[in-house]
Amino acid sequence: MAETATAVTERLSELLPAPDTAESRVIEAMRYSALAGGKRLRPFLLVHSAALFHVSPSAALTVAAALEMIHTYSLVHDDLPAMDDDDLRRGRPTCHRQFDEATAVLAGDGLLTRAFEVLADPVAHADPAVRCELVRELAEAAGARGMVGGQMVDLMVERGIGDLSMDVAAITRMHQLKTGRLILFACLAGPIMGKASAKMRACLHAYGRDLGLAFQIADDVLDETGSAQDLGKTPGKDAASGKTTFVTLLGLDGARDRARMLSDQAVNHLDVFGPEADMLRAVARYVVERDR
Amino acid sequence: MAETATAVTERLSELLPAPDTAESRVIEAMRYSALAGGKRLRPFLLVHSAALFHVSPSAALTVAAALEMIHTYSLVHDDLPAMDDDDLRRGRPTCHRQFDEATAVLAGDGLLTRAFEVLADPVAHADPAVRCELVRELAEAAGARGMVGGQMVDLMVERGIGDLSMDVAAITRMHQLKTGRLILFACLAGPIMGKASAKMRACLHAYGRDLGLAFQIADDVLDETGSAQDLGKTPGKDAASGKTTFVTLLGLDGARDRARMLSDQAVNHLDVFGPEADMLRAVARYVVERDR
Repeated sequence: MAETATAVTERLSELLPAPDTAESRVIEAMRYSALAGGKRLRPFLLVHSAALFHVSPSAALTVAAALEMIHTYSLVHDDLPAMDDDDLRRGRPTCHRQFDEATAVLAGDGLLTRAFEVLADPVAHADPAVRCELVRELAEAAGARGMVGGQMVDLMVERGIGDLSMDVAAITRMHQLKTGRLILFACLAGPIMGKASAKMRACLHAYGRDLGLAFQIADDVLDETGSAQDLGKTPGKDAASGKTTFVTLLGLDGARDRARMLSDQAVNHLDVFGPEADMLRAVARYVVERDR
Repeated sequence: MAETATAVTERLSELLPAPDTAESRVIEAMRYSALAGGKRLRPFLLVHSAALFHVSPSAALTVAAALEMIHTYSLVHDDLPAMDDDDLRRGRPTCHRQFDEATAVLAGDGLLTRAFEVLADPVAHADPAVRCELVRELAEAAGARGMVGGQMVDLMVERGIGDLSMDVAAITRMHQLKTGRLILFACLAGPIMGKASAKMRACLHAYGRDLGLAFQIADDVLDETGSAQDLGKTPGKDAASGKTTFVTLLGLDGARDRARMLSDQAVNHLDVFGPEADMLRAVARYVVERDR
């Protein structure tokens, strides 16, 4: 994972050149947040699922960088005072803490916009029909019926707007929107770029769906058990705010069991592949065993 | 203009269906802002420049709706307390006033994302290469080297960050980024969709550039002379905040003269067309003569 993380950070740096003009402040803020590191789970999934279908590694890395721009923008906006009001992200001050709130709003907007510009560029894929499909898939995954919709539900629950009751089904749906859809895109971009068969695509779809949910349940567990140093963010916020999570609904052991079950299930969806899918199998196990 | 405005509002409503699920709140907020009306100048320019190149009116309207989503998102984010902190927009409460700040951040993000999803869809154009070009052009126009960059410079000037000195050249560049690039896209989408010659494209480019600047100078004049009722927003904010505008730099008459000169110049760039460009000629005159 460290190898992909380094490669995608380099590609992000190339794709976000800082100009020598007045507006460079917003590009500096975009770079500050996008180049900060993190696990780079989504790029890892994208690069390794693309490799299964013999996609050019450089093109996969470009699409992975675009996806990571979207992920980063969502963190920048999520951290804003009007949203989760977080001071710490990936072990550093959040974007609005390092710059200011207005700059953080614009940096998020700039990253979101740049992601689509990159996907529509020939560097992402030689075939414009494939580039259009990438734009549509990612926009659907990131938009109001995907990630943004999930963030809305999360906020409504937290603030008691709309009186939503959160049982396991409702929280599962919320996470499938909020984090699941981008992880799913990471797994689908490879078969899209490689023009894989519908059957292969369905395998990666099933893998990505189970993996995304396993990841989120493990995140809830870590919020309960992890340290600020390991996580690079403030832990225990969910418990402190009385938020409903997989841990409050299933208990710590129940949540851990469910995450492991989903991780096993994700691995099973890869049975159609040989050892070339071992990296994807390993990462499915990693997401539920990690300590950060 | 009223005809195009009605048509684009209908298309926006079709492209932003409200689902019957928990996250519908953010889509309601997107609809609240996108369907509020306004002059719809950009859709008018897009639809009428597309007609010059025999583009399907329905496809042009779809691309115009996507452009208007981007314009609307920029207003929603611009109005936020962390940015311009405005209460009134198009004669109604701003999005964060009607809903709340977090919902307004997400509604803006949702509109920006949906715009690219629409452009990459076959409804926007049959040829995927053209759709990719539309995505790239609009993303470049809206991003950190376009509109978002212009908003950054505007904020830096207003808040004294970076000690930028604003002479006529600097304020012209700022407006070319902040509002000019989207207006330019409105004029270029037609020739892109119609696969027009480089010469035709250059004419529309020159027209759009001059028109955009004329529009902005006229806006500065209106901020000085208009009424809240006509404008649908609070006038005199620029003067009250001691902001540098074309009016403070050139005087009221000087600014009016420059806007008219640019409008005339925009009309001249259409000399290559016959009466089929009369609507575009009329709108160039309108932007400098309007009272709202």
